Amino acid sequence: MNTASFDLREYLRQRVALVDEALTRYLPSEHLRPQVLHRAMRYSTMSGGKRLRPVLVIAGAEAVGGDAELVMPAACAVELIHTFSLIHDDLPAIDNDTLRRGRPTCHVQFGEAVAILAGDALFAEAFQLVARNAETVPAERVVRALQVVAEASGTRGMVGGQMVDIESEGKQVDAVTLEYIHRHKTAALIRASVVSGAILAGGETWQVDLLSRYGELVGLAFQITDDLLNVTGDPRKTGKAVGTDAARGKATYPALFGVEASRERARELVNAAVDTLVPLEERACALRALAYLMVEREE
Amino acid sequence: MNTASFDLREYLRQRVALVDEALTRYLPSEHLRPQVLHRAMRYSTMSGGKRLRPVLVIAGAEAVGGDAELVMPAACAVELIHTFSLIHDDLPAIDNDTLRRGRPTCHVQFGEAVAILAGDALFAEAFQLVARNAETVPAERVVRALQVVAEASGTRGMVGGQMVDIESEGKQVDAVTLEYIHRHKTAALIRASVVSGAILAGGETWQVDLLSRYGELVGLAFQITDDLLNVTGDPRKTGKAVGTDAARGKATYPALFGVEASRERARELVNAAVDTLVPLEERACALRALAYLMVEREE
Repeated sequence: MNTASFDLREYLRQRVALVDEALTRYLPSEHLRPQVLHRAMRYSTMSGGKRLRPVLVIAGAEAVGGDAELVMPAACAVELIHTFSLIHDDLPAIDNDTLRRGRPTCHVQFGEAVAILAGDALFAEAFQLVARNAETVPAERVVRALQVVAEASGTRGMVGGQMVDIESEGKQVDAVTLEYIHRHKTAALIRASVVSGAILAGGETWQVDLLSRYGELVGLAFQITDDLLNVTGDPRKTGKAVGTDAARGKATYPALFGVEASRERARELVNAAVDTLVPLEERACALRALAYLMVEREE
Repeated sequence: MNTASFDLREYLRQRVALVDEALTRYLPSEHLRPQVLHRAMRYSTMSGGKRLRPVLVIAGAEAVGGDAELVMPAACAVELIHTFSLIHDDLPAIDNDTLRRGRPTCHVQFGEAVAILAGDALFAEAFQLVARNAETVPAERVVRALQVVAEASGTRGMVGGQMVDIESEGKQVDAVTLEYIHRHKTAALIRASVVSGAILAGGETWQVDLLSRYGELVGLAFQITDDLLNVTGDPRKTGKAVGTDAARGKATYPALFGVEASRERARELVNAAVDTLVPLEERACALRALAYLMVEREE
């Protein structure tokens, strides 16, 4: 692979196919008890997601000389964590969303009790998959990856960010709090994806540190773009209604800084992320292309 | 320690004090953001639980020559998983319980959104603690313990059992389904507690296998006793109202087999569990005493 000839579209097609195939294999069968729980887990996981986080695990591994096969259980694990968080965030007590990617949300389809438990079960399944990565990778690396992924999921990461996001609804939010929400709710798991891929593939400390910085920068750029798409996006492409953040009084970048300044900030973050990749040379060409995708995406 | 002179009361006092001290240290500070989440996590965890599962992790380690200090992070991890499951089970969409151990349940005290996220955060924290055990124990053992604990928590364990329990409410349930619920909802995590302690302490395969059998037997006995206490217990001691299972049409041992046959079955299970411990000799004296406690307890 080299940057000049790198075809991101083809890269994504191949990697996403591998991830989808592995997810189907790893998720518990709908024929096993409790069937309704397994149906709900599959319904929410296999619903046409972009698989951004697992692709970042794979690209993180590739950037230090590993490959997709080596890190596939962990790649699927972060997708299950992402799916679990969507199911719980959609619940009536939290965001009360009834549609996601054009389909009824998990609790609308299966009821609230099943949705709560399906989220919990996906979270547990994710950590089983991280452990399973010890089949291909030394245990020391698996434990380090586990630490990174668990920390990024809990109160020091995704769940903590979601909590502050909810607390802030309808309130005047300052830049410090907005940054806190974005860093924790979204950037933490995106960063953990790249970093855990690199750790599992045996990346050296300087490589992992550099990819950690990359992950944080693209994670923030991703969330700012998400905020922008909620203002300016095409609902036929995003699969989401426009203006819902504003209607809910959510803390967002465009609300605080305006659309143009937010676009500019996202571009700056992506450029900085791409700069961090220089020492990794051609092996990081997928990460480089993925960084630009963060701000150029329409969904 | 030997069985003749073994003082279970003193043993529990010491071990529970160690666990409570470690939990206070491990849980995120209430002074750190998001404070309300951390308050909720502590409120539900530090509420006078029996600490049965962490004590079983410790006793499992001791039975193969380890000690409490060696396995403390994992011991606290299983207590956090137990607490997370109680918070989610108490939610309005599931059991809709408003009191636990004489205090308002998490969602009554903090609201449903906080309760859902506090459960999620405790689950994530638990896996961070399992990873942290690598500070005192080789990574290979940590990964094996992780696998056991994660499997016992998810759809092949606790969450799966809770799902079938909910599905079965108000229905005529056969012995196979009742056994499924008890094995998964309660026995799986109890078994995983003993087993993970033994694995982390470097137990040999024959020892771990034997403790796995012990854990399954006492786990079932524990749940049957729980069912019995719901029929015949003293609410001042159990901290729970009597007859709530029957009122909800829950699948229970006494409902299916009667009180006397259930008592007999619990005693048989405990005797079988104690028999499995013979090859471990005096090092298993705590596990032996804990097995009897499962059926003799009044709370």
